Parts: sequence; C-alpha cells; structure tokens
Amino acid sequence: LKALNYKEGKISFQKDCPAPEQQPKEALIRVIQSGICSTDLEITKGYMHFDGVLGHEFVGIVEQCNDSNLTGRRVAGEINIGCNHCSYCKTGNSKHCPARSVLGILNKNGSFAEYLTLPMKNLHQVPDSISDDEAVFVEPLAAAFAITDQLCVTREHEVCLLGDGRLALLIAQILHLIGCSLVVAGRHEEKLDILKKMGIQTTLSCNLFDKVYDIVVDATGSPSGLEQASGIVKPGGKIVLKTTVAKERSFDFNQLVIDEVTIIGSRCGPFDQAINALKEKSVDVKPLISKTFELKDGLEALMFAGEKGALKVILKS
Amino acid sequence: LKALNYKEGKISFQKDCPAPEQQPKEALIRVIQSGICSTDLEITKGYMHFDGVLGHEFVGIVEQCNDSNLTGRRVAGEINIGCNHCSYCKTGNSKHCPARSVLGILNKNGSFAEYLTLPMKNLHQVPDSISDDEAVFVEPLAAAFAITDQLCVTREHEVCLLGDGRLALLIAQILHLIGCSLVVAGRHEEKLDILKKMGIQTTLSCNLFDKVYDIVVDATGSPSGLEQASGIVKPGGKIVLKTTVAKERSFDFNQLVIDEVTIIGSRCGPFDQAINALKEKSVDVKPLISKTFELKDGLEALMFAGEKGALKVILKS
Repeated sequence: LKALNYKEGKISFQKDCPAPEQQPKEALIRVIQSGICSTDLEITKGYMHFDGVLGHEFVGIVEQCNDSNLTGRRVAGEINIGCNHCSYCKTGNSKHCPARSVLGILNKNGSFAEYLTLPMKNLHQVPDSISDDEAVFVEPLAAAFAITDQLCVTREHEVCLLGDGRLALLIAQILHLIGCSLVVAGRHEEKLDILKKMGIQTTLSCNLFDKVYDIVVDATGSPSGLEQASGIVKPGGKIVLKTTVAKERSFDFNQLVIDEVTIIGSRCGPFDQAINALKEKSVDVKPLISKTFELKDGLEALMFAGEKGALKVILKS
Repeated sequence: LKALNYKEGKISFQKDCPAPEQQPKEALIRVIQSGICSTDLEITKGYMHFDGVLGHEFVGIVEQCNDSNLTGRRVAGEINIGCNHCSYCKTGNSKHCPARSVLGILNKNGSFAEYLTLPMKNLHQVPDSISDDEAVFVEPLAAAFAITDQLCVTREHEVCLLGDGRLALLIAQILHLIGCSLVVAGRHEEKLDILKKMGIQTTLSCNLFDKVYDIVVDATGSPSGLEQASGIVKPGGKIVLKTTVAKERSFDFNQLVIDEVTIIGSRCGPFDQAINALKEKSVDVKPLISKTFELKDGLEALMFAGEKGALKVILKS
C-alpha cells in the first residue's frame, strides 16, 4: 500500500507499506484525501520527534468495522486516541490522556496513506453537502473553534488575530461570525485579501502599533508571534496561543505579571461544531485551497506547502 | 530627612534628603515602618531599572492633606499612581495605567524614608485593631488576594503553591481559607513549619512528582518556578504566575499549547480585602516577621532579607 513515510528526518514515498493493523474498536478507513498542516511541516523540522506516516486532516470511507452504521460512510476523524481508562478519557477529554497517541503526530501512523485506522468513537460522519475538499478542513476548523470553547469572546471585545496562514484564515472567519471587533494582521496581502472579500478588517503586521486589544490570538506559526502578541495585548487582557514550533522561545514573563496578562494554550476542538459550520456554509474554506497533489508527489506537495504564499495543500490518497 | 536611596546599583543611607514634594491631591505621610519585599531585592539586582528611594509596603500617619478626615490617620497605601485620565484610571484600574508611577518601583520615591507622598485616594485607613507590624503586610496580602480576584478557586480544586517565602506564606493562608485541596511546596522546613502549625499541608519541593494539580501558583520568586509549575499542572489547568525576577526565562510553549494550559500573570490586589482579613484575624502574619531594623541600618536589613531563611524584615523609619 502507498504511504508517505517520515523517518529519521527523511520523507519517502513508499508503495509497499503493510496495511495498518486494525485494533479492536477501530475502523479501517480508506483515505480519500488529506490536508497538509503547518504541524506536518514542523514535524519535518524535528517537532514531536515523530517517525511514521504523517497527516492528520483527512476525509475517508470506512471500509471495515464492527458498527454497520459506520461501514461505507464518509468520515472525518478526531486525532487523539486515549487509553479509555484514565480520568481524562472517562470525562471525554482524551485529547489530554497522558498515554494517548495522536494520528500522524505521536505513535500513530497518519493519513498520508491509502489506509489508516482510528477508534470508531473518533469518527464523525461527513454530510453529503460537504465536499471532499471541504471535509479536510474539519480537523483544523475544530481547532479554530477550540478558542471560543476556551474563552468567552463577545461583540464587546476588541480582538487582534496575528497570522494569515491556513489556521489563521479559519479562526478569522469564526471570530467574524461572533461579531467581535476584529482585525487580522498578516504578512501576505494576497492571503489577507481572501478575508477582506469576506468583510473582515485586515492589516499588514508591520502596521500594528499603538492600539492594544482585549484578546490577541497568535496563529502566526512563528516563534516571534507570542512576543508580538505580548506587545499589543491590553493589561489584564488575554493571549490565545495556537502556535507550536520546533524552535525554543524565550519570553518576558515580568511584563506578563506586571500587566496581569493571561496566556491560554489552545489545541484541538469540537468536530461537531466544525462539521456544522461547513454544512451551514457559515465558514468558506474553498478560497483557502492552494493546490492538490497525488500521494506519490507528496514530497513535492510538502515543499510547496512550506513555500511563502501557500495555503491549504491537498494530498489525494 | 533620612532615606534609603538606591542609585546606579548602590544603596546608601542619607540623612539630608529633601522632603518629598507634595502634589495636588496628594497626602504627606510620615512613615512609621515598612516591610522589605522580594521585589526590593530584585530591584537591587537590576529589575525595573529603578533609581530612587525603595520600599512600597508601609504603614504611616497622614501629616498633611486637604481631607480633614484623613489628616492624623494611620494608613496603608496602594502603590500604583495613575494619570487619572486614561481608560484604565477611569475604570478604577490605575494599576494598569500606561503612564503610572509605582511607589518605590517606578518613578516614585518609596517608603524606606521618613516621609513619602501618595494620592489621597490611594490611602486606606488602618483600624486600631491592626498593629503596625501587621499593617506592613496589607500591601503583600492584597497582592495575595489578587489571585482569588483573577480566577475562581473552589473547594473542588486541587492546588499546589510553589514557594515558602514572604508572599507564598500569605497566599497559602488565603487558599487555605477557601478550603481547596492545598499543598504548599517549599525548600525550607522551618518556613513550611509555620504553615503546618496552621493546619496547612506542606512538602519539600523535591518530593513533588507524579501528582498533578488543577491550579499551580508560582510564588517561588525563582526563575525556575514557572518550569516547575509547568511540570505539575494538569492538562487544561492553570498556572498563576506571581514571580518577577531580574533574569530572563525561556519556556516550553509547545507543551503549554499541547496541554492547553493557561498562565495568569498576577500582581497587585484589593486593599480592603487585605485589611479586613487582618482585622478579622483570619490571616496570621506575625509568625512571618523575622527581624526589625532601624532605617540607618537599611543596607544590613536588605542583606539580611536576602539571606536564606529570612522572611519579612521590617524597617523602622
């Protein structure tokens, strides 16, 4: 079977991978296609020290499982696989299970392959009204919705979103839906233009000064994003940190204490909300698709996704 | 007039300081005595780049002001002096006024002197039932109460307080009052013993492992406190950061994002609550007093306060 394998710092396309082993309560899923995420690119720079098949944003068809309602269905899948026994798993919080594996990120082969396996309870059916291209956005869109799960954002808040990449453009649309006073600051006019067309206020990051915000979201994917956020957050305000990068970061914690700022780490979010938003077309992901590649051209696809200006790159399995 | 002056990295006792200039709406206060805070010690290591009279925890008598109700009264004083015009000052949030000065910390001579001035609205009368020795704890105790202002701590929470210094021993008592499941982790058996006698669970920091907490308060005053806090906070949990240190700190922000941890910077708090707690004797500060010095021996007092094992050192003006 075909898969894009990452091992000891090298990515290779392989044609002869064994089929993934289906555990009890898991489903075998034929991957239709995957999205390439910045996390995939960070992994290839050493983040998470992962070896295996990359990819965690996918849509696929359930080929085999014990639940006849699921077999044959088109699904997206939550990426955290918990132990099912710890206090986190028992309270529906498997994303924080200390013994978890994570699809394409931690001890679990991912979706840049013909087949993957996931626990049946991780799967969400994708309604017919959501296309395959849209469906690969379910996972990152859920991650964007995590923000509104973690903190209260209202129309009263002045919010600045730093970043104009794949995830940022999703977060921007969600914050815009809430109706808060929002400005999105990025480095790429052409990416910001996508949001402008949606009626979202944008600016180049270099033009941010003086004004301070109640909430700043760092979705830059850059080690410098947090420092920038810290410079424009109001005293008593909140920074939502979405950026994970292979590089270490140092930070002026004194200023954080003096200004009584809160930093909130934010990762995975609710799939049902993401699927609903795509179904209701309240979020438009199609302008975010840059290019589609075949799995065998995966190395080229990853390089393309890492280039300045690239947004979502899709890999067909 | 006598004052303990810090200038260009050197502390000197001076006998011939001019009287502090009383601004409109300010009161002239004869300082009875002050407490030495870890922040004072950090300033002498370069924190805040402050030049001037140190000291911000004091009790004194109002000698001169326009309010006859205040004149002659014994007072403690809030340390932030706002501009009175910005949006922070207008909403009672002068501690975050961008143009503020801060008593003994930023552009305002402090309390290690015979006299100081502060805006009348910064002053809080100290009831007779609170002694001078207790009254110097009003400011740090208010800072401890800031925590329960900033986040909800209930009996349901498992809380670990890191630190057994001046501020930590106050925070411990407040968290104990709330009735949360609390353990205080420090490095000095004799300091932890003070809390043990109050029925508070303590442990040596080196014995902290395995168990994780909903809320971790870093009041270590050490650059390593935050990293330690990060190691014992539950995923989805909260770290309250009280520590400001002259040294830079680097931090694993990836883990913060992955574990969706929140860091909350915490500084100054409500004086009324602190005064009330001292009045009601719900907090006992007397065991925290290590030694009292005369102002002329201020250098010796600061050195003593910086020694391992020292708690609150009082300077008589």
